[in-house]
Amino acid sequence: MSMIVAGIMGPGEGASNEEVRTAFELGAMIAREGWVLLTGGRAAGVMDAASRGAKSAQGTVVGILPGADTGDMSAAVDIPILTGIHEARNNINVLSCRVLFFVGMNAGTASELALAIKAGRPTILVDPDEEVVRFFRGFGSEVLKTAPDAATAVQRARDLLAGNRIA
Amino acid sequence: MSMIVAGIMGPGEGASNEEVRTAFELGAMIAREGWVLLTGGRAAGVMDAASRGAKSAQGTVVGILPGADTGDMSAAVDIPILTGIHEARNNINVLSCRVLFFVGMNAGTASELALAIKAGRPTILVDPDEEVVRFFRGFGSEVLKTAPDAATAVQRARDLLAGNRIA
Amino acid sequence: MSMIVAGIMGPGEGASNEEVRTAFELGAMIAREGWVLLTGGRAAGVMDAASRGAKSAQGTVVGILPGADTGDMSAAVDIPILTGIHEARNNINVLSCRVLFFVGMNAGTASELALAIKAGRPTILVDPDEEVVRFFRGFGSEVLKTAPDAATAVQRARDLLAGNRIA
Amino acid sequence: MSMIVAGIMGPGEGASNEEVRTAFELGAMIAREGWVLLTGGRAAGVMDAASRGAKSAQGTVVGILPGADTGDMSAAVDIPILTGIHEARNNINVLSCRVLFFVGMNAGTASELALAIKAGRPTILVDPDEEVVRFFRGFGSEVLKTAPDAATAVQRARDLLAGNRIA
Repeated sequence: MSMIVAGIMGPGEGASNEEVRTAFELGAMIAREGWVLLTGGRAAGVMDAASRGAKSAQGTVVGILPGADTGDMSAAVDIPILTGIHEARNNINVLSCRVLFFVGMNAGTASELALAIKAGRPTILVDPDEEVVRFFRGFGSEVLKTAPDAATAVQRARDLLAGNRIA
Repeated sequence: MSMIVAGIMGPGEGASNEEVRTAFELGAMIAREGWVLLTGGRAAGVMDAASRGAKSAQGTVVGILPGADTGDMSAAVDIPILTGIHEARNNINVLSCRVLFFVGMNAGTASELALAIKAGRPTILVDPDEEVVRFFRGFGSEVLKTAPDAATAVQRARDLLAGNRIA
Repeated sequence: MSMIVAGIMGPGEGASNEEVRTAFELGAMIAREGWVLLTGGRAAGVMDAASRGAKSAQGTVVGILPGADTGDMSAAVDIPILTGIHEARNNINVLSCRVLFFVGMNAGTASELALAIKAGRPTILVDPDEEVVRFFRGFGSEVLKTAPDAATAVQRARDLLAGNRIA
Repeated sequence: MSMIVAGIMGPGEGASNEEVRTAFELGAMIAREGWVLLTGGRAAGVMDAASRGAKSAQGTVVGILPGADTGDMSAAVDIPILTGIHEARNNINVLSCRVLFFVGMNAGTASELALAIKAGRPTILVDPDEEVVRFFRGFGSEVLKTAPDAATAVQRARDLLAGNRIA
């Protein structure tokens, strides 16, 4: 039985303080569930905070890096995957996760959320803007959920993984 | 001097009749400009219509296909590029174009539009829904434009390629 | 009916003068057959010479570039495909060609030849070292041929495309 | 500090019994070193045997899968990375490893060995055919080593990682 891989996606350099806090908290919770955390691996914003959160709770962190070296890697990544395929790696981030959490939004993050919906991966938007929800709900995904905070998001993920309906 | 490559992106199977008509018309106009048309290459929706439009005006069509064979290729593709990297090819579609036109919207198309903005490629949304414009304008791109129809879109593309400002 | 895409693969910076001459000659012959030439697109060695050869005979040249811009592109490329996936593009070079010519050998070229055999693409080694032939023949490909020079190689390619046996 | 990722590459379906035995043994030794094992992830040949070996010694196994699902995954993979980019993933296998072991040879494996040399990754051929060594040594790599068996190979890897010279 392979481990459960859970992803946290969100802005790098442009992440807000609030998003960084949420990502750290969510990373720690994922580690406590016994899930492996997967991020985009860089030392910036949501990726970095989520990874540090998971490490603070003795979790395992896989970083799917854009480049061919570890130059811009988060120090909290345990297992670096060096793709060398740059933005095209976004689809690998998405495909590899049994459940995906999104914290914050920018163009790169939007590409990952769109690909997650296309791939049918269970996806939870944490404290999203209404506009984001409205836009992506339009694609008719049945596995796109929202949660107001990290704790609720993890509860929703548990339900999705157990195959339970979420109202 | 390499040729100008212009892309038309949009839904495959789920494209509306209106979107198919617009894509055909836009493909023909691109060919008449002397630009090479680039699409996702499959025999469906906007990709297929744009390709047929370009062929109707003696244009050249490059199809960036997801798979490793030509099984689902539009009959109007002149030069098939078989990537074998599936959805990850969306970033190749975007990077390879000097200017990109978007006709219609679904999850796959949204991933391409997000990647186009991230890569800073000049991009024109043809007759878009207001919600689409509002969502993607939020990422602050200076090269994201709109046009009400194919003819205006091509005019905007000419201006963008010439480095002119568009109001 | 899509056009016939023929690839020329070989060393970039380390190509010998002899290899550069052969690549130019082969590029010109491919253009005269009415085939589209596909190369790795950079301004170096076999890629560049093949592309210049094809242009000298009014051919069309597609360059599958490793990066996200045209900074190191051969001036003889007509249609640049900017993959942004670096060495991983080697598999796209291989998959996209109906027939592949190899001129010279280095590590990158060896990866392309191995992938061509794996994908079952008709492949012709032009004036190869015996060691190269012996090594790759070991993989049991039925579509791996050799030719002593460019003219014979093109004849072998015509036969392969026509489905004829080659002794 | 991220963990040391060590890769074992080799034939899938066509692996010999001897290669399967060596891969299992090597996988177990890598786990005992405290290194993470990385393979191509499928339930076949060297990949599968190496993964089972690592699990027999309580190691952690990352599988870099070609497709978008776990349908053909080795049951011994802990962390599946679903790339969806098929053979193009070979370059990710290579880039992600601090040291690479090769057991056996076929066309796919040859593409990985060629890419490893191109990327300059420390590489050890375990009990290779002379022809393989001669062919790849021709590319002048300073980090291409050989070893007669799994135990010696791991010793060489330790030396390479410590920056020691190997005669």
